[in-house]
Amino acid sequence: MNKDLILEKQQQAVEILNEKGIDMWMTFVRETGNIKDPMLDMIVGTNATWHSAFIITKEGDTIAIVGSLEEANMKIVGTFKTVIPYLKSIKEDLINTLEKYDPQKIAVNFSRNSTLADGLTHGMYLELIDFLKDTPYKDRVVSSEEIVAALRGRKSDTELAIMREAVVKTLEIFDEVTEFLCAGISEKDVANFVFGKVEERGYGYAWEKEYCPSVFTGPDTAGAHSGPTDRIIQPGHVVNMDFGIKYKGYCSDLQRTWYILREGETEAPEEVQRGFNVIKESIELAAKAIKPGAVAWEIDAIARNYIVEHGYEEYPHGLGHQVGRVAHDGGALLAPRWERYGNLPYMTLEERQVFTIEPRLTIPGYGIATVEVEVVVTKDGCEFLSPNQEELFLVKP
Amino acid sequence: MNKDLILEKQQQAVEILNEKGIDMWMTFVRETGNIKDPMLDMIVGTNATWHSAFIITKEGDTIAIVGSLEEANMKIVGTFKTVIPYLKSIKEDLINTLEKYDPQKIAVNFSRNSTLADGLTHGMYLELIDFLKDTPYKDRVVSSEEIVAALRGRKSDTELAIMREAVVKTLEIFDEVTEFLCAGISEKDVANFVFGKVEERGYGYAWEKEYCPSVFTGPDTAGAHSGPTDRIIQPGHVVNMDFGIKYKGYCSDLQRTWYILREGETEAPEEVQRGFNVIKESIELAAKAIKPGAVAWEIDAIARNYIVEHGYEEYPHGLGHQVGRVAHDGGALLAPRWERYGNLPYMTLEERQVFTIEPRLTIPGYGIATVEVEVVVTKDGCEFLSPNQEELFLVKP
Repeated sequence: MNKDLILEKQQQAVEILNEKGIDMWMTFVRETGNIKDPMLDMIVGTNATWHSAFIITKEGDTIAIVGSLEEANMKIVGTFKTVIPYLKSIKEDLINTLEKYDPQKIAVNFSRNSTLADGLTHGMYLELIDFLKDTPYKDRVVSSEEIVAALRGRKSDTELAIMREAVVKTLEIFDEVTEFLCAGISEKDVANFVFGKVEERGYGYAWEKEYCPSVFTGPDTAGAHSGPTDRIIQPGHVVNMDFGIKYKGYCSDLQRTWYILREGETEAPEEVQRGFNVIKESIELAAKAIKPGAVAWEIDAIARNYIVEHGYEEYPHGLGHQVGRVAHDGGALLAPRWERYGNLPYMTLEERQVFTIEPRLTIPGYGIATVEVEVVVTKDGCEFLSPNQEELFLVKP
Repeated sequence: MNKDLILEKQQQAVEILNEKGIDMWMTFVRETGNIKDPMLDMIVGTNATWHSAFIITKEGDTIAIVGSLEEANMKIVGTFKTVIPYLKSIKEDLINTLEKYDPQKIAVNFSRNSTLADGLTHGMYLELIDFLKDTPYKDRVVSSEEIVAALRGRKSDTELAIMREAVVKTLEIFDEVTEFLCAGISEKDVANFVFGKVEERGYGYAWEKEYCPSVFTGPDTAGAHSGPTDRIIQPGHVVNMDFGIKYKGYCSDLQRTWYILREGETEAPEEVQRGFNVIKESIELAAKAIKPGAVAWEIDAIARNYIVEHGYEEYPHGLGHQVGRVAHDGGALLAPRWERYGNLPYMTLEERQVFTIEPRLTIPGYGIATVEVEVVVTKDGCEFLSPNQEELFLVKP
């Protein structure tokens, strides 16, 4: 728990509340050891057992209403200026606090579009509405989607500094994998090698360890979002790895592609090189279009069209997502306008958002070429936090 | 991921669906790396990125509808008989599946009372109802509360065997703490000692490491649910520790009390001994009343009244909770009829449920006496999974 960073994000939340014309933002949770609102780590910094309301107002007040047994802990954690303990029910203190501020709009964490703004469970929503049923506040509840997207998207200087470090440390592991790779070992061997590096350095995993890293070798792999298998890396395989660490609470998310030379080869076959180049170029093209105000799906379309125009199938996912405390972070998503992505592809980009760019294509008979970079949106463009992969990595057999 | 155990629990779920007259149970999730339905580990065994429906029917069919990129992973995990992949939206496959079974009651995971049955976020609830709006199924959605309470509560033989092992391993660490404890070290020193044992043996923590263990020394402690502090253990202090491990996916949760002898003392002062005895006896009395069919709040009242009758303040929490994959598990809760506990104190006990019994009382001027045991409900009573603390542990100064 980095208290200064939490206070920095709370302060930013107050500015966003004023910008969006919302009077109060309430994160309403219980038993966060069982199911945890994704905003808790960013704006609270500890857990809650009983019904708890973590309130930030447009005036800059922060109020935590918590079970009496957690009062002491909240005060030690020290991220909320006012801590109100209750014994039997939160209802009275909650209503008193609302009456004190009389907010016209109360944002709570539910969203059809963004999981990160959707930490309020349906049962807790019913609880809240029932607590408020005899007050005007039940009709003033709105989605916190806009607040969460802005707050998670706009990285502070502290956050960007941590994320730059995380990228450097991740690329070190990729370089070590390049040294380690050879024909004859399995996808799982590569993953175990990576686990060793992560654990000896005390990092966390950016997503579930079961597929962090994901390692795919050759033409017959399972595709994305699968764990490494016993499949053996062989000459003539294209190999790719998707991997990120969690470092000081922030994630990295990168991919690289290798080719395993066959006996007598000194470079990759023409069709492998061509597939890799199309990936690399599609990243360059997409990155050139990224700037504040750009529409997310249009960035996806640039890379997608470039790949299709070169005769490959389109990738069956979005071009990129935001990264932050979680690997899939923020609101705006560089994705096509498919129903499963909700309104996220329609959002516009903002300065200080960090995106991945991660196109993919299949090179028939060889495997899958993928490169993933991270970029941060700047005032008038974007900056690569991790370099593009300029050359296909060749592995001697 | 223990596939056999997941299949065992799915089979049990089918029996419970039939017992409760519910046709289908659907766990509906997305981006479980960001927020995770508490049922996922028990009945699925992997994560999901896009809208995913994990369906169990009263006929015993299991159907996973997942994003196409996760089809391969679901098949490798192998816990669902049918895997249906989709590319752009889950809607069509979801409705087709509902039409195939035409369920009259579809349980989904929302509950005002139980967080463990409340894994459906409000945004996802709105998504689901919108997907179903032109079908009869939108009006057939019910809470899965009863299913979840039964399924998590009724431990299988495999689960009980693991939980017994977890208790033994936890008590070993308590014994090591008894050897380690002395005046002059801090609460944090004790916690660090415990961290070392947990990590050297590769266990997990039963709840957030920030207060697992909780260690409290002396008369001026923060109370429950706080992390260990720099407070120094001194002669004349009552010390207690609340701690549990996560072992093969299952938690333990135990407490013990020590007294730090003062110069010249060979036993604890009479008032310390008396406070400890009242705790110990209240556990015995409560345990005697535990059996299938007993009402949860009545068990709490036995210990609560016993403590109050002996002149102590009542403890500001429930007497005990169920334990399982999470430290606070299951439905029925041994707690008073306070609003914050919802309907859980009114539920009746069932065979194979595992409960903690953990009364607490303050010994003025010395500290807090607590003992926590785990018991399993048997056919006509209960069995201690961990022994009661028969004697106050005395620590030489």
